[in-house]
Amino acid sequence: MISVGIVGGAGYIGGELLRLLLGHPEVRVVAATSTRLAGRRVDGGHPNLRGRTDLSYSRPDQLPECDAVFFTSSGLEDPALRADLAGRGKVVFDLSSDLRLGDPQLFRRHYGAHPTPELLGTAVTGLPELYRDRLRTADLISVPGCMATAAILALRPVADLIDGVVTVDGRVGSSGSGASAGEMNLHAERSGVLRVFAPLNHRHQAEISQATGLAVRMTATGVDAVRGVQVLCRADARQVDEATIRAAYRRHYADEPFVRVVAQKRGNYRLPEPKILLGSNHCDVGFAVDPDSGQMLLIGALDNLVKGGAGNAVQSLNIRMGWDERTGLEFTGLHPA
Amino acid sequence: MISVGIVGGAGYIGGELLRLLLGHPEVRVVAATSTRLAGRRVDGGHPNLRGRTDLSYSRPDQLPECDAVFFTSSGLEDPALRADLAGRGKVVFDLSSDLRLGDPQLFRRHYGAHPTPELLGTAVTGLPELYRDRLRTADLISVPGCMATAAILALRPVADLIDGVVTVDGRVGSSGSGASAGEMNLHAERSGVLRVFAPLNHRHQAEISQATGLAVRMTATGVDAVRGVQVLCRADARQVDEATIRAAYRRHYADEPFVRVVAQKRGNYRLPEPKILLGSNHCDVGFAVDPDSGQMLLIGALDNLVKGGAGNAVQSLNIRMGWDERTGLEFTGLHPA
Amino acid sequence: MISVGIVGGAGYIGGELLRLLLGHPEVRVVAATSTRLAGRRVDGGHPNLRGRTDLSYSRPDQLPECDAVFFTSSGLEDPALRADLAGRGKVVFDLSSDLRLGDPQLFRRHYGAHPTPELLGTAVTGLPELYRDRLRTADLISVPGCMATAAILALRPVADLIDGVVTVDGRVGSSGSGASAGEMNLHAERSGVLRVFAPLNHRHQAEISQATGLAVRMTATGVDAVRGVQVLCRADARQVDEATIRAAYRRHYADEPFVRVVAQKRGNYRLPEPKILLGSNHCDVGFAVDPDSGQMLLIGALDNLVKGGAGNAVQSLNIRMGWDERTGLEFTGLHPA
Amino acid sequence: MISVGIVGGAGYIGGELLRLLLGHPEVRVVAATSTRLAGRRVDGGHPNLRGRTDLSYSRPDQLPECDAVFFTSSGLEDPALRADLAGRGKVVFDLSSDLRLGDPQLFRRHYGAHPTPELLGTAVTGLPELYRDRLRTADLISVPGCMATAAILALRPVADLIDGVVTVDGRVGSSGSGASAGEMNLHAERSGVLRVFAPLNHRHQAEISQATGLAVRMTATGVDAVRGVQVLCRADARQVDEATIRAAYRRHYADEPFVRVVAQKRGNYRLPEPKILLGSNHCDVGFAVDPDSGQMLLIGALDNLVKGGAGNAVQSLNIRMGWDERTGLEFTGLHPA
Repeated sequence: MISVGIVGGAGYIGGELLRLLLGHPEVRVVAATSTRLAGRRVDGGHPNLRGRTDLSYSRPDQLPECDAVFFTSSGLEDPALRADLAGRGKVVFDLSSDLRLGDPQLFRRHYGAHPTPELLGTAVTGLPELYRDRLRTADLISVPGCMATAAILALRPVADLIDGVVTVDGRVGSSGSGASAGEMNLHAERSGVLRVFAPLNHRHQAEISQATGLAVRMTATGVDAVRGVQVLCRADARQVDEATIRAAYRRHYADEPFVRVVAQKRGNYRLPEPKILLGSNHCDVGFAVDPDSGQMLLIGALDNLVKGGAGNAVQSLNIRMGWDERTGLEFTGLHPA
Repeated sequence: MISVGIVGGAGYIGGELLRLLLGHPEVRVVAATSTRLAGRRVDGGHPNLRGRTDLSYSRPDQLPECDAVFFTSSGLEDPALRADLAGRGKVVFDLSSDLRLGDPQLFRRHYGAHPTPELLGTAVTGLPELYRDRLRTADLISVPGCMATAAILALRPVADLIDGVVTVDGRVGSSGSGASAGEMNLHAERSGVLRVFAPLNHRHQAEISQATGLAVRMTATGVDAVRGVQVLCRADARQVDEATIRAAYRRHYADEPFVRVVAQKRGNYRLPEPKILLGSNHCDVGFAVDPDSGQMLLIGALDNLVKGGAGNAVQSLNIRMGWDERTGLEFTGLHPA
Repeated sequence: MISVGIVGGAGYIGGELLRLLLGHPEVRVVAATSTRLAGRRVDGGHPNLRGRTDLSYSRPDQLPECDAVFFTSSGLEDPALRADLAGRGKVVFDLSSDLRLGDPQLFRRHYGAHPTPELLGTAVTGLPELYRDRLRTADLISVPGCMATAAILALRPVADLIDGVVTVDGRVGSSGSGASAGEMNLHAERSGVLRVFAPLNHRHQAEISQATGLAVRMTATGVDAVRGVQVLCRADARQVDEATIRAAYRRHYADEPFVRVVAQKRGNYRLPEPKILLGSNHCDVGFAVDPDSGQMLLIGALDNLVKGGAGNAVQSLNIRMGWDERTGLEFTGLHPA
Repeated sequence: MISVGIVGGAGYIGGELLRLLLGHPEVRVVAATSTRLAGRRVDGGHPNLRGRTDLSYSRPDQLPECDAVFFTSSGLEDPALRADLAGRGKVVFDLSSDLRLGDPQLFRRHYGAHPTPELLGTAVTGLPELYRDRLRTADLISVPGCMATAAILALRPVADLIDGVVTVDGRVGSSGSGASAGEMNLHAERSGVLRVFAPLNHRHQAEISQATGLAVRMTATGVDAVRGVQVLCRADARQVDEATIRAAYRRHYADEPFVRVVAQKRGNYRLPEPKILLGSNHCDVGFAVDPDSGQMLLIGALDNLVKGGAGNAVQSLNIRMGWDERTGLEFTGLHPA
């Protein structure tokens, strides 16, 4: 049994960490912080947790020493505070974008200047399918972006076959925008949308490039869903056929507990569909190929708050602690939903 | 051709008035005010109006003299300003709840003390089906609440038959909460809800009582729709049969251009359904009766921003000006939608 | 470890039984039948189960002897077949409406003549909160209707206080209509609806009366959700105050693992909301009272496929087998979702 | 006043033609055919038309001679019948895919062998923005596909600048699948989806190539909307800058009544969004460019049943008859909706 603290427990990623960690048999959640809601019950804003916990939010400075600390939002505005809080955890998980890129130049282009660029490159990426071995001993783990995770897992098996630029079309539900009120996220404005909020060069393309070695151009659209990410990656190959691609996917993911290869001939769910992944830690990946033209479509789908965030973090924790990787992540998703 | 001004043009009711009045052949919109957005184009926040108008918002104090002025929100916080602005219109339409109730006591119970109670009872209610004759000469018109309009039109034909208390179950989409950002209206929180925001004694029950003479108890639920109101009214009758009720509805609404009696034996749309009324000025009303037990269910449906607000106001304007009542309100609604 | 068979595994209730029972540590699913899909994999139509099972459908006549058999649909068309299949299970769960009512007259009024009326009254109702003791030894268990379950649990604590008729307003998502294609359930027709499919005397009113002893009148509306039931029950009491009602609810449900009393002063989720219950076996119940008028609103919410069906059945199984009642039902629900 | 007949009036495109033509001041609808529903009222399945018409369906063979005939579905199964019916109209509009491609080889690849290939190339494409002059005298008009229309209008202004292959990512609501019941279109299955139903080589790519001269690769996804199409077209240019692209769009569409250029710096609706186009005949087009990399994203949005089908047909009719092009198509779309 280890003790964990969550810095920033009031948002959607914080709520999802609470859901998963409160149900984890090896974990005791000792603190969830919220500057704004300190003293209030965590099940106020996370009503699904009623009956599951009596915890109340504490102020960040009240965070005790813990076996593991999870940060849900950026610490760039106050690096000293972040360093102080990070020092209270033996293992630190950062779910913000602060540490996702290794190159300070690249970071600046997408996020602005980093106040402590010496930290870039010091974290292990919390993506077990690529970095499992390093995660076993990591003390600083940076969880990748939700759309980046889906794209990396969809592209990785065939990265060597790809010729030229990959274009990534990401689609994401409203929970990806967080729990803060903004006019753009009002139900009346967000319902039914196909909002191209990043027509070119979405930030996650840097992460995808970094992990796959590919040249990536990424577009992102907000869709009418609360949870869910789907990425469509287009690429050309010098030479493709369906059997080769399928074999590559199978080889990469045969032993992965949370990646399923979904590329069937028929059926409503023959390709990866986030609708059936809500609450689940699965990332489904699939593909279509046209041998005549050499084009491929590589698809990934996941729940942005689970495999795209909190679930990935918990899976990484399980690896770091030497537990069964699936612990606390058994929920299979609903159909229909 | 008359000149009209809209005080409070930036909200959803303001946008709907603009949509209807900009398309009205007898009307010229000379001003739409917004304190916050003065100087900005009205098609910025109302993107459906692109290409339809080049109007920009003006400050309220810039409102010119107009043939008609429409107020979209309450003036109770500054009665002197409201009186000043109202004085600039020959005919005044108030779409807020300020003037909907005639009795100061009742107003206080539901809305708090009225700063100028002497105004209560001075407006004609902008509900043509009940007050058409008075509207022909009215200079101050108070447009009723969206759920109240649906319930009044559903109940009116059978009000004399009802024995005892009527219970009203109102359901309403998110546009009824207005365009201001609030955490409760975030897409992630509002999507998929059945939010019982008024379990007992919703404010509109006072309006319904006032118009029908019935004792009313009203509940209201926010549902996952942007537009749309539906009310289910339960009542008992000393004696009911289907033919009597149908005849009463037909008699009341035979000549009404915007009320349809929908009470069929079969079909997906056999009873009033707001889904097919989006953008339309129709209020559909229908009923079911059980002669054995004497119970009736009386149903009304409309688009809260049209027949439940801006459309009702324009219909009242048409009557006041002596035009064909349907002018500018011809849109029939979409199916499917 | 017991063996279970599911007769009718291809529908939505069948899929939900599979999801819950495949994840249940004490259960082995030995057969799921489907006449239409015999020989096909169960994860074809239930894609959330990919990676969880390699089971394929068998024909009903291939059902082996099992410790428990679950029927998901009516057996009235072929009572002999049903009796044969039921005989293959030591304990039988019927999730259809076949055995829900005890009175043949009442059954006939709502469902038509029962071919084997002598079976009515022989099953124990699979509603643990009311019938836990009898369930410990029951060999034939009839799981109640989804809206009936919500209404019974909402009404039960205050049934003794109620004076006169209760009206029940049920709202239900599209999964309640089953997985069979019908034009009425097309997305384009069903999306955004408030479809009053039962304006008066919905069938479940008989079940609610039977369990509570109250006179019930029930209306039902299909809403734009896939899963979810909410019931609003209106009743009058000779004498009510908030503290008495709250105490009654707490007393009834203090020790219940799956009923939460939700009646708070503020917050988006201050009353029962199905949105946060998807996939969970909870039934949330709450209330509002107006001491002046004596009116009460009693609210229940649940996931129609879980606590309103498959989850209730598994909870009853757990009781029958003497296991911890929560086994296999730990999923807490998602927020946001 | 001309007489028109609609062959296939019961589907969604048929309903939309009825909505538009019944409201058209120069048109009298004399027949709407439906083999299945002959004798039944057209407002049965199109409930938004209640009060607008008393028309009932006739059998196809009852179609009278008309000034214009509209076909909503394919006639390839019975070419003789189609020729007979087409002969009853002075001007014929075909809204199916029968005549959209000019090349029999290409047709075969996407749709199978054409029984009367000599008809291919004989129709004028009903896309006023490209073929207005030819439409003035056309007697056979083939209305293009919904996603094709959006993509063609988005690509046309910059087609000369494009270097290499264009990839098109189409998204479409459920009404695009038609009014026939199929399990894949059940609400429970279709709600919340991101269904990649055409991962590569969607049929419409042939139409887009034919109209633009570009090499096109097209993917299509079904999204959770009833109406609406959006296409994202990626292309590279030898040399791009924002001013050049904007000027090209403005030049092409300055005088077009139904194409708006939407490419703003900020705002929720700064790029084309189908949500605000429901019921409207507008196609909004917009773009983003990255001069550094030479990449462009070109976006089109429309209502698939209006500008993507029935509205385009009516606009073409207006041109053919010499009427104001906007007649009967004035509805501006709703916000919010």
